[in-house]
Amino acid sequence: MQVVMGIDPGAANLGFGVVRVEGARMVALDGGVVETSPELPIERRLERIHGELAKLIDWHQPVAMALEDLYFGKNAHSAMAVGRASGAAMLSAAQRGVRCFTYTPQAIKMAVCGSGAAGKEQVQRMVGTLLGLPEPPTPDHAADALAVAICHGGATGREAATLAAEEDAAQRLAG
Amino acid sequence: MQVVMGIDPGAANLGFGVVRVEGARMVALDGGVVETSPELPIERRLERIHGELAKLIDWHQPVAMALEDLYFGKNAHSAMAVGRASGAAMLSAAQRGVRCFTYTPQAIKMAVCGSGAAGKEQVQRMVGTLLGLPEPPTPDHAADALAVAICHGGATGREAATLAAEEDAAQRLAG
Repeated sequence: MQVVMGIDPGAANLGFGVVRVEGARMVALDGGVVETSPELPIERRLERIHGELAKLIDWHQPVAMALEDLYFGKNAHSAMAVGRASGAAMLSAAQRGVRCFTYTPQAIKMAVCGSGAAGKEQVQRMVGTLLGLPEPPTPDHAADALAVAICHGGATGREAATLAAEEDAAQRLAG
Repeated sequence: MQVVMGIDPGAANLGFGVVRVEGARMVALDGGVVETSPELPIERRLERIHGELAKLIDWHQPVAMALEDLYFGKNAHSAMAVGRASGAAMLSAAQRGVRCFTYTPQAIKMAVCGSGAAGKEQVQRMVGTLLGLPEPPTPDHAADALAVAICHGGATGREAATLAAEEDAAQRLAG
């Protein structure tokens, strides 16, 4: 059983989503958006992102932070802005000993919907389904962040499940 | 009299340069490169950049951090990597109350050489001249960082320093 924090990085709106991986099941613990005003200097916005995520990490104690690699279809200018927000998020994790992992949008869609070409609404619907929520989560950035967490949790969840199954098998063979 | 820290952001090699602006004159106080191994996880590399710059800020007490906006001629993928390093640098400044300013390569070349199309070697030579160094500074990333600091340090400083350098040269020629 482990907690994963997903991040949908952006300077103006950074989505976060926290899930607990319980073997093959996943449960949503938290989700939302860190908004920063464009009127603030960029370094203050990064400080706010860093500070808010630090509080969330201290609260939820995730073992990993999973971030969407958002450079596809972006120009270099907006990729740099996303990179700054992403760097601030990663730093809040690193300073608390939390490992970071990045996933492409394609990998996330594949993990959540079984197709790298899945549409945005389809991803949000599946996020709701996989987390057992009555409705697809909102806002969009939080849903996207939960999708990254699921993508990472799926990989580790499968590993853990496989490991448990192997141990079971080994015990059965030994016994 | 104020101290400015210049940053040439990069994930593998981040250049820094510190100058003191003394009215029309500028003096180099420090310069170098924060290197991070590609074998380290990205969040550890950002943590190292953040930590090293924090130490330098505590030591030199700059009033401003000036960063090169390195997205021109980059693809979105490398712009995102530069953005992450840039975000880590900005955060170390923000947490110490130091304002951040970004400049395009064109603006920096214009401030240092009087032409936005100046070549790399020309910029490095002028950085050496403006800071009264016996030789152009090395390595490249440190020289580029000093150039950003000079750019922020002010156009009046540049003009006066150029004038002084020209007077020096004139005197040498006359003598």
